[in-house]
Amino acid sequence: MKKCLKCGIRTNIYIPQHRLALCPEHYINWFEARTQRTIEEFKMFQKTDRILVAVSGGKDSLSLWNVLVKLGYEADGLHINLGISEYSEISEIKTRNFAQRIGRKLHIVDLGRDFGRTIPQIKENERRPPCSFCGTLKRYYMNLYAREYGYNVLATAHNLDDEVSVLMLNTLSWNIEYLSRQFPVLPEENGFARKVKPFCKMSEKEAAMYAVLAQIDYIEDECPFAEGSTTLHYKKLISQLEEKSPGTKLRFYSEFLSKMYPVIKDRRPKTSINRCKSCGEPTQSEICMICRMRNNLLYGKLQTSTDKADNP
Amino acid sequence: MKKCLKCGIRTNIYIPQHRLALCPEHYINWFEARTQRTIEEFKMFQKTDRILVAVSGGKDSLSLWNVLVKLGYEADGLHINLGISEYSEISEIKTRNFAQRIGRKLHIVDLGRDFGRTIPQIKENERRPPCSFCGTLKRYYMNLYAREYGYNVLATAHNLDDEVSVLMLNTLSWNIEYLSRQFPVLPEENGFARKVKPFCKMSEKEAAMYAVLAQIDYIEDECPFAEGSTTLHYKKLISQLEEKSPGTKLRFYSEFLSKMYPVIKDRRPKTSINRCKSCGEPTQSEICMICRMRNNLLYGKLQTSTDKADNP
Repeated sequence: MKKCLKCGIRTNIYIPQHRLALCPEHYINWFEARTQRTIEEFKMFQKTDRILVAVSGGKDSLSLWNVLVKLGYEADGLHINLGISEYSEISEIKTRNFAQRIGRKLHIVDLGRDFGRTIPQIKENERRPPCSFCGTLKRYYMNLYAREYGYNVLATAHNLDDEVSVLMLNTLSWNIEYLSRQFPVLPEENGFARKVKPFCKMSEKEAAMYAVLAQIDYIEDECPFAEGSTTLHYKKLISQLEEKSPGTKLRFYSEFLSKMYPVIKDRRPKTSINRCKSCGEPTQSEICMICRMRNNLLYGKLQTSTDKADNP
Repeated sequence: MKKCLKCGIRTNIYIPQHRLALCPEHYINWFEARTQRTIEEFKMFQKTDRILVAVSGGKDSLSLWNVLVKLGYEADGLHINLGISEYSEISEIKTRNFAQRIGRKLHIVDLGRDFGRTIPQIKENERRPPCSFCGTLKRYYMNLYAREYGYNVLATAHNLDDEVSVLMLNTLSWNIEYLSRQFPVLPEENGFARKVKPFCKMSEKEAAMYAVLAQIDYIEDECPFAEGSTTLHYKKLISQLEEKSPGTKLRFYSEFLSKMYPVIKDRRPKTSINRCKSCGEPTQSEICMICRMRNNLLYGKLQTSTDKADNP
């Protein structure tokens, strides 16, 4: 058994990539301070900003909300009930309970009520994989709520493992356009709020350990539609690399940001943003993706083109 | 059993990443034509060039020599006997026999005789891993023989798997300097001959199949010092990716060359090349790596610094 670096107490908590042993109390401090350093490193936001955190009810998003509030930021929550039977019901309950515990405002979108269709219902009518149109809907409501309620920053709880698997995917095909967008802060532009990822340097394991130690009651199940996704396959491979030499994940991501991102960031294509002719939301096309999804649902047409740049 | 795309004969030979079934005869044709296309794509050399092929006696290098001669190029061989007991003895015999079969000139360096020490003997005195100083010696003798015997092109049989594992290694740490050198043609400069890799787009399996079908008698053992190398670990991981989605390796490498390499190639640092004060060979330092290795052997000193840019 190792000893906590801060207080010397015997502890089981060890973070191999940082060669760091910490007791529960000092682990919580370390995790929160590291989030604060990440926020500062990338100039994500300040105490005067109004932050809307996307909270699914899982370990990452509830931990992020908890850390931001503990660090003294003005952070409210937005939960989207996707209508995926029991999974969504439990997610909403856990999120509501947590909002009450920390005493912060929680906005709730209910897809079935507010969009008129749940994810399983939309799935019947869509060619795209669920994660794709579900992402479009989430981004749409996040932007909408930020504007309606005056939040200038949208925070998501993407962790290091999420970022690394997307980075690996984009690197394997050298998709320079996507790589040039992979930064943990995307500035406010074209009617879209600023987007930040304060957990981008915290691994999935680190975030899970924080959630457990901070006694956060989160939903443990993964979304049933996420199974078998390519991202999960990459996560497994990257875990093998990490096991062989701890720190590989963090180095791959951090060195990308410090060495490669500066070289390619200006290669991000300038996109011209219009207003959707139907709803007025920003879009690259004449009609935004959300209105197209609505039309598909109304008229039963299948989605034929994917408009990846909508609501980036 | 599939049918040959060219002649319809039933065949076991199938290349998943190209979705291509071929009979033995048409496989040989396809492999040679694909090498020719690679040579042209990267403007590696022409029929008027004098090419020196580095031949170890393994499947890749003997296949490359065979293909180049069959394609009508002026290609002679250079074999370096590393003095690694039976492995080196068999390698030299297979290489000599093959040179006789194709009727081309073969130069032989015997490290024990020409450098004064074999690889196992040098290993006793060196801190660097064997693959590192062995590479330095190979590059030194290749450049020396090219100049002495008037070859203007040095060809090595690095295959797609070799290139991809190095690319992965350099990408995981985003080593822009190394990435900016990873191109299958390095032009003649600073007293070093032009270097080319005509098999850069052929996988290890494809090259092995060619060797077998072209009835090339090669040494099957790997160098005993190569075991457990990082490159082998990456090769395994990349094979998993390839198995999951055939074509990943080739796409990763080809798209790097077409999309990322143009962005970073000008970031290759300009190095000032001196002449070694001891032997006159080109070097970045005052004394070249080879003379330093010689001095270490003479005076029993341990190598302390690695001069990676010597004989690139």
